[in-house]
Amino acid sequence: MPVVGVIGAGQLARMMQPAAIALGIGIKVFAESNDSSAHQAVTKVGDINDFAQLLEFAKTVDVITFDHEHVPTAILEQLETAGVSVRPGPTALKHAQNKLTMRRKLAELGLPQPIWQAAKTESDIANFLQNHGPKIVVKTPIGGYDGKGVRVVSDIADVRDWLQNISQFGGELLLEEKVDFVTELAQLSARSPSGEFNAWPLVETHQQAGVCAEVIAPAPESALHPQALSIAKQISDGLGVVGVMAVELFRARNGEILVNELAMRPHNSGHFSIDASITSQFEQHLRAVLDLPLGATSGTSNFAVMINLLGVDSENDFVQHYPKAMERFPQVKFHLYEKAPRPGRKMGHLTLQGNDLDQLLADGRACRDLLYNR
Amino acid sequence: MPVVGVIGAGQLARMMQPAAIALGIGIKVFAESNDSSAHQAVTKVGDINDFAQLLEFAKTVDVITFDHEHVPTAILEQLETAGVSVRPGPTALKHAQNKLTMRRKLAELGLPQPIWQAAKTESDIANFLQNHGPKIVVKTPIGGYDGKGVRVVSDIADVRDWLQNISQFGGELLLEEKVDFVTELAQLSARSPSGEFNAWPLVETHQQAGVCAEVIAPAPESALHPQALSIAKQISDGLGVVGVMAVELFRARNGEILVNELAMRPHNSGHFSIDASITSQFEQHLRAVLDLPLGATSGTSNFAVMINLLGVDSENDFVQHYPKAMERFPQVKFHLYEKAPRPGRKMGHLTLQGNDLDQLLADGRACRDLLYNR
Repeated sequence: MPVVGVIGAGQLARMMQPAAIALGIGIKVFAESNDSSAHQAVTKVGDINDFAQLLEFAKTVDVITFDHEHVPTAILEQLETAGVSVRPGPTALKHAQNKLTMRRKLAELGLPQPIWQAAKTESDIANFLQNHGPKIVVKTPIGGYDGKGVRVVSDIADVRDWLQNISQFGGELLLEEKVDFVTELAQLSARSPSGEFNAWPLVETHQQAGVCAEVIAPAPESALHPQALSIAKQISDGLGVVGVMAVELFRARNGEILVNELAMRPHNSGHFSIDASITSQFEQHLRAVLDLPLGATSGTSNFAVMINLLGVDSENDFVQHYPKAMERFPQVKFHLYEKAPRPGRKMGHLTLQGNDLDQLLADGRACRDLLYNR
Repeated sequence: MPVVGVIGAGQLARMMQPAAIALGIGIKVFAESNDSSAHQAVTKVGDINDFAQLLEFAKTVDVITFDHEHVPTAILEQLETAGVSVRPGPTALKHAQNKLTMRRKLAELGLPQPIWQAAKTESDIANFLQNHGPKIVVKTPIGGYDGKGVRVVSDIADVRDWLQNISQFGGELLLEEKVDFVTELAQLSARSPSGEFNAWPLVETHQQAGVCAEVIAPAPESALHPQALSIAKQISDGLGVVGVMAVELFRARNGEILVNELAMRPHNSGHFSIDASITSQFEQHLRAVLDLPLGATSGTSNFAVMINLLGVDSENDFVQHYPKAMERFPQVKFHLYEKAPRPGRKMGHLTLQGNDLDQLLADGRACRDLLYNR
């Protein structure tokens, strides 16, 4: 029986475990602390920056994959040199780890993206502000997630702290035009080492304070689907991705589709697939990293809606409110990640499927409110 | 967070774990040996006939439930006396543990069943053979499963060994007429301690050598559904069942629906629900034993087909044949239980869903054959 080793023990590793149990595939998780979300699959607690610890773990599994993108590229290269199968490999993964590396590669592939530029100095930023302001987006190339490491900037002073510590971001910041977008979209796909590619339908995502709040699958505007699929395929092949990849996209007011971000792992925008697709993103990721044929990605209903449960404070206890939420909404699928609550943190999600999108959204939001005891 | 304790670590406990992970509910499994199917959730390996060990385990969870019906009633009663929440409780569970107890209770409830009788002696059996032969069915009241403990008998000599050891079956055997049935059916339902009842659609089951080989959901003959549902509701309420219950039924040639067997736990006939129902039987069982409201049991497609993967010999290695089966059938859901192969053993199952029942059956059987390398 093949065994997949997952580095990182957050909710993505947690949600890989049921897929592994169903397939009869082994799963072992390398956690960075005790009491992690994926604790039922954790076999090792250690430091992801310690090559020796990762190598020891890798020797107990057939292939290494990831819950997050935080393992340094140099260590992943060392693991590959030591004969470990790392999927996605560092050559692909670095594009998800570093947003400047990603922008440069997308430019090389000729894919549509916001106007962008690398910046090292105040004058770089001042020039970009002058040409593309009055507001621009400044990002740290590495280390950002869920809106962290991203700022909307109208003055140098807004990012002076980042400039002063620029060496910790690799010596450069990423500047982007502030896209006037109508909707945000995400294209989820998977690719196996043998090059097989399969995608789920394009989805629409709704952000609140930089964090995904809701996902609608498929995105109602069907005319956008072919271009999004084509972009994902070009990135996937162009970068040699292995496993699940999410491409976050803007639909600009002028009609253009522009690449916003990349993730090379199962992604929040694909959680609907657990309950509402023939093959979930977690099962597909396991299939891909094991070089098994990919599963069908069709939906089991016309529409699915995914609603995130974000922490409001340190007191959220969604399980306590299960009785009234489950009683009123027997058709909702509940997912909780066993994470300590804190504001804005992804604590769980809800999924609904059916034919009436407006009703699904209304029910999902009402169910979420019951779990918040609102 | 509530924690469910499961006694027994077979594939049913294994399949409860993903449901617990999704809900963010704790699960702990009491196994009878190492290397069990549910090993990823096992927290204790011990003897299910040892009250002290079970009590110690029970103290680490909020409620006890079961992967099988083999824990002696007396021990379950002791646990209840010690304050442990046992669901289903021994008062209900004894009807699934002892087929004579079940037959007597169904008679009391006035429910349709085959002609039956308790037998203690050769002459009891000879009389029953004379009245209902030339062939009758003889069952050991306790300890049977998957065709074990059931014999089709035309002569006393066929069950003389059981008569000689009758004390180990509680001093009686169960005699039943051999029903001339057209189809076998199963009605799966769940009931919570507060009395909420919910059922999945009636299914048709196909047996081979006394073991379930295929399940079709829903059973195509829709005229049978109301009566099957009514029978399940009466049994569930009449016995005070908590959790999932499967009622296996015969549809006799004369049109009657007769109760064959009862199980008070998730059941092979309900495995289709993992992939093809809004709420799986495993999630529903957890909800019921925790007295949470029950989930919707509607299907995500018009039809689902479940195909069992039964061991043929000690060499079966289905994972080895995943590549060709997955390549040809991307829409099939694969489930393997990590059990050592042996002839007739339930090793895993496949689920397909869609609109064309004949195609689903043909694809499922062809996929099964690929996994057997046929």
